[in-house]
Amino acid sequence: MHRLRQLTAQIPRKTFYTTSPPPPTIMPKLLYPTSLAFDASLLEGYSVDLVPYDVKSPIPSEHTDAQVLITWTNSASNLKDAAQRLTSLRWIQSLAAGPNDVLGAGFDPKKITITTGSGLHDHTVAEHTLGLLLAAARKFHLMRDAQAEGRWPGELGGPQPDRPKGAFTTLQGANVVVWGFGNIAKCLTPWLVALGAKVKGVARSKGVRDGVEVYSEQDLETILPETDALVMILPGSEATNNALSRERLALLPKHAWVVNVGRGTSVDEEALADALEKGEIGGAALDVFVKEPYPEGGRLWKTPNTIVSPHAAGGRPQDPEDLVAWNLRKFLAGQELKNVI
Amino acid sequence: MHRLRQLTAQIPRKTFYTTSPPPPTIMPKLLYPTSLAFDASLLEGYSVDLVPYDVKSPIPSEHTDAQVLITWTNSASNLKDAAQRLTSLRWIQSLAAGPNDVLGAGFDPKKITITTGSGLHDHTVAEHTLGLLLAAARKFHLMRDAQAEGRWPGELGGPQPDRPKGAFTTLQGANVVVWGFGNIAKCLTPWLVALGAKVKGVARSKGVRDGVEVYSEQDLETILPETDALVMILPGSEATNNALSRERLALLPKHAWVVNVGRGTSVDEEALADALEKGEIGGAALDVFVKEPYPEGGRLWKTPNTIVSPHAAGGRPQDPEDLVAWNLRKFLAGQELKNVI
Repeated sequence: MHRLRQLTAQIPRKTFYTTSPPPPTIMPKLLYPTSLAFDASLLEGYSVDLVPYDVKSPIPSEHTDAQVLITWTNSASNLKDAAQRLTSLRWIQSLAAGPNDVLGAGFDPKKITITTGSGLHDHTVAEHTLGLLLAAARKFHLMRDAQAEGRWPGELGGPQPDRPKGAFTTLQGANVVVWGFGNIAKCLTPWLVALGAKVKGVARSKGVRDGVEVYSEQDLETILPETDALVMILPGSEATNNALSRERLALLPKHAWVVNVGRGTSVDEEALADALEKGEIGGAALDVFVKEPYPEGGRLWKTPNTIVSPHAAGGRPQDPEDLVAWNLRKFLAGQELKNVI
Repeated sequence: MHRLRQLTAQIPRKTFYTTSPPPPTIMPKLLYPTSLAFDASLLEGYSVDLVPYDVKSPIPSEHTDAQVLITWTNSASNLKDAAQRLTSLRWIQSLAAGPNDVLGAGFDPKKITITTGSGLHDHTVAEHTLGLLLAAARKFHLMRDAQAEGRWPGELGGPQPDRPKGAFTTLQGANVVVWGFGNIAKCLTPWLVALGAKVKGVARSKGVRDGVEVYSEQDLETILPETDALVMILPGSEATNNALSRERLALLPKHAWVVNVGRGTSVDEEALADALEKGEIGGAALDVFVKEPYPEGGRLWKTPNTIVSPHAAGGRPQDPEDLVAWNLRKFLAGQELKNVI
């Protein structure tokens, strides 16, 4: 797990002081959040002043000289305030997968390097995705509905056809398309393959990545009609807005499921609700929505075969100290950081 | 998939008739069920008369001379009738994992070899088990309950602690104990390991199987207190009755989940319901019950963190033709069959 810890421990120091410590210098100050269990002791050995801070309050005035700010679930007002008052800031390391909250706060991108927590959420998001796929195939949502009525759903159990055509009942032999083929997809795909799925990727550029055939979005027209489950892991941006449009939804077979763990904006929600209501697709398992929390009275609460998951796939950066340690070393050495936006 | 097909195709015939066919002999008759998609053409090449039959009706009188009977979801009356009237019967191949229905019908075990469909259900049961484990860890049941109310369950999403102690929130790093370490466990375990779980097996005899440390039931006293998820895959028998007893349930940590995909009788259901109600364990995902369908008004419909699955893990024998082809060759050669009870 703590690969970087070992790596950094092996890096020889340029200078060894065998007699007396060096004269005191002003060390760069790094502010780390108390909004998660962050083990600052794993950053020891660097010439940095490590200071914890509360992400929901203004930074105390004695720490506005910080050069480095680690962010996680900061309040908008905290970030806005920091953008004004942290005039020495040179680097922001977000632990979130995307930098949207930081970008919106008014930091000066000319003076400040911003790095994301991309990679810290791969495993957890991939696990949630696998769970949603299995819940969809095995119809756990319908079992739960029956259980709420105290009714044994015999129609979902007992003898049943093995891998029938025109149904998504198992990952074994299923055509799974992963749209957005970054680190999460690379974590998820080997599990899908182990379970017997036939996986295709879709991304902006085609090619073979980690042994998986990745197609371009131009190929969707031929790929979607042969899809049993479409996994969407697209980031939120202008370019991905309504990527799964009404036209593309119409290309999916009647039994196909859509699983979205990327950003809600990448799916045309009204077109999706229409397709679900009309039985034009098999179902949808959604962890993200255009508006979150998904609004009261929204159609997707009640459309058939719809699983609503409350943006729960990620939200727990794993071993962030490793990434921070790596980037801190690069920062102090004046070298290029990882995950620069 | 059809490994055996290839194998049997390679077996040289003892005799080749280059001029004329052999004189007609009475070929053994094999009855195969129409209750599943059974491709009898995959058995061609053997000197056997292949006859389909209806598993819910008495065998037609012209076929009571059958020597081989393949069974799948036969009615009790069909089997009882067959036990009386199929006086030439020498071998019954059940496609179910266990032989209980056949054993109860009154066939003469001295005259008739009985083989089970053990192995035909490994993948499907293992997949369902993985799904239940992920549903439990990711709390899909609670999400569904909130969805039924049209409520966004913010408490289940957003920022959350990563792998907190004293909770089962992920398979990553989780201590998963698989009790009953046969073929299903051997299919399931590599997936669990790929997802980051630490897997221990429990079986009658200890040892290392497929790279997994398998402990004996005497070790449960030390293993259960360190378990995050206990997967039960025990067969139904006198010996496994209430294997997960009140005393053993009490050894599990408060956050531990029980997943049962073996037989309902292996768990003391009343003790389980008590533990769930008192919050003494984390939850239970149950695909099997002492009585199925689970009775109306039964406590487990409503105990907290209980997932009721209607015996849906298996029920779809995979590639049964391979097993039948293998055993048919052995039967015709007078050699020992696979899966003899």
